[in-house]
Amino acid sequence: MTEHTSRPVAVAPDTRPAMYERLCAAVDAAGADRVGVGDAEGLVWADPGNTDDFPAIVVDADRLEWIQLPYAGIEPFAQHLDERWAWTCGKGVYAPAVAETALAMALAGFKHLHGYSRADTWSAPVGRLLAGSRVTILGGGGIAECLLALLSPFGCDTTVIRRSDHPLAGADRTLTVDRLPDVLPSTDLLVVALALTAETRGIIDAAAIDLLPDNAWIVNVARGGHIVTDDLVAALSDGRLGGAALDVTDPEPLPDGHPLWALPNCLVTPHIANTPEMGLDLLESFVEENVRRFCEGRALLAPVDVALGY
Amino acid sequence: MTEHTSRPVAVAPDTRPAMYERLCAAVDAAGADRVGVGDAEGLVWADPGNTDDFPAIVVDADRLEWIQLPYAGIEPFAQHLDERWAWTCGKGVYAPAVAETALAMALAGFKHLHGYSRADTWSAPVGRLLAGSRVTILGGGGIAECLLALLSPFGCDTTVIRRSDHPLAGADRTLTVDRLPDVLPSTDLLVVALALTAETRGIIDAAAIDLLPDNAWIVNVARGGHIVTDDLVAALSDGRLGGAALDVTDPEPLPDGHPLWALPNCLVTPHIANTPEMGLDLLESFVEENVRRFCEGRALLAPVDVALGY
Repeated sequence: MTEHTSRPVAVAPDTRPAMYERLCAAVDAAGADRVGVGDAEGLVWADPGNTDDFPAIVVDADRLEWIQLPYAGIEPFAQHLDERWAWTCGKGVYAPAVAETALAMALAGFKHLHGYSRADTWSAPVGRLLAGSRVTILGGGGIAECLLALLSPFGCDTTVIRRSDHPLAGADRTLTVDRLPDVLPSTDLLVVALALTAETRGIIDAAAIDLLPDNAWIVNVARGGHIVTDDLVAALSDGRLGGAALDVTDPEPLPDGHPLWALPNCLVTPHIANTPEMGLDLLESFVEENVRRFCEGRALLAPVDVALGY
Repeated sequence: MTEHTSRPVAVAPDTRPAMYERLCAAVDAAGADRVGVGDAEGLVWADPGNTDDFPAIVVDADRLEWIQLPYAGIEPFAQHLDERWAWTCGKGVYAPAVAETALAMALAGFKHLHGYSRADTWSAPVGRLLAGSRVTILGGGGIAECLLALLSPFGCDTTVIRRSDHPLAGADRTLTVDRLPDVLPSTDLLVVALALTAETRGIIDAAAIDLLPDNAWIVNVARGGHIVTDDLVAALSDGRLGGAALDVTDPEPLPDGHPLWALPNCLVTPHIANTPEMGLDLLESFVEENVRRFCEGRALLAPVDVALGY
């Protein structure tokens, strides 16, 4: 047992009861004093879908120092980010689950499982090996790290594209974002796994897609806004791309009747990279660890850079 | 360069031109003398779908010592197996491709990709983690070996069931076939990857399926005859099984209108584990190696045990 000072930590809002209860349990297990927001030095936000209530809930929280957000993608909170407080998020918590989903979707594309799932008759065998393919991962965070680990037995040629060229363990090469156009023509599989910011919104547009080989697959497990949807629809319709597997869409949820639903080379999943049943377990133990660190005055995991917005 | 004596080797039949040409190239590249069957000491069989012509083709092949079959599953040749000749097959050649397909199908099942592929509207996120699951592989050959390698980053608890309990590298435990009933109740994913023989036909029947947890998945990348199809249909229909992903079926091809096509928890693929485009590359280099070994009098790869039938 590490000795630690207990500190007052609140959990709010309670608009999503299953998450609220699990996060209260995490705060208690970490040994913090669970208090109302007005008395709290730390706040664990417990409903990623509810950001509108945030200003009213913290208006009297004069002692507040730290806010823990529940998800990796914090853009719904962008307007509330404020350097008065230290912010942490769910960055990395769900990375193993998201990486697993990315691999599942890539393999499904390469093996035509989306097409065979729709079939009601025996047809010709098609499919490519992922082993030995050229994989480009856009983003150098926890998802990329976990995906590289899952890909390691496949002997792929892996390129990570990130803001810095600081090498990511397990990647054959790590390049900065300006090198993306150089890499796309030799990419069999492009995995989008980076944070959504003003700079990365629409990064996969018609120009980028046209640089990919005609049989390349795109897997998006980040945010729908990284891809210009209309450009993707056009490329998929024209056969200028092997296919796309999208766990996130723009708009999201994808409306009924949207062309992406009907395209034979597209697989849409409804943001399953971490499902509630998988995610709450991962989140609870992560928040417990961060609350413990907060009480002990240690560095917090998954800090948000308020200036960069992720 | 290894020095070797050239020996006369035939390639037949020529009923499948693409395969015939690639196998002729393999024989030539290995430095053998390519001859007609009547003069051959070795024969590379070049059409897995054509076994009827076999007796007539070898009737005058008095010098014949060795026959190379093109596929891992040699049951179409069972009636022709004869200890006058040494037989080798494609065992192991396709194992990396089959293992990749098995993983793709397992992940698709765990992530409900078969269901989402059929959807035309946004729905609730469902899906389980493969990481940390309990995986049982029925069969201890090349597919199991390759699949264990692909699974290694997932931290699964892996059990291999095989004829002998000789440990398979990468498996947490290796058990003999009689232990199958003990293992099924704690199996999240059952991968069928063994040879079809009289003993293994129908090994997955109602009794075996009933021992699996209600949310378990079965992936079959071996032969349709390992599973009693009617028993599987009944279990899938009653929700006594998470689902099944079948790259092989009994009957195969699966006829139109068969209940497996319509079951929401079933994914059928038309024997895609090694597609022609993937398989010929793998087969050509394998046959070249075996012809070279034959010419040099070295031990041949993938020998068939005529008594065991695989």
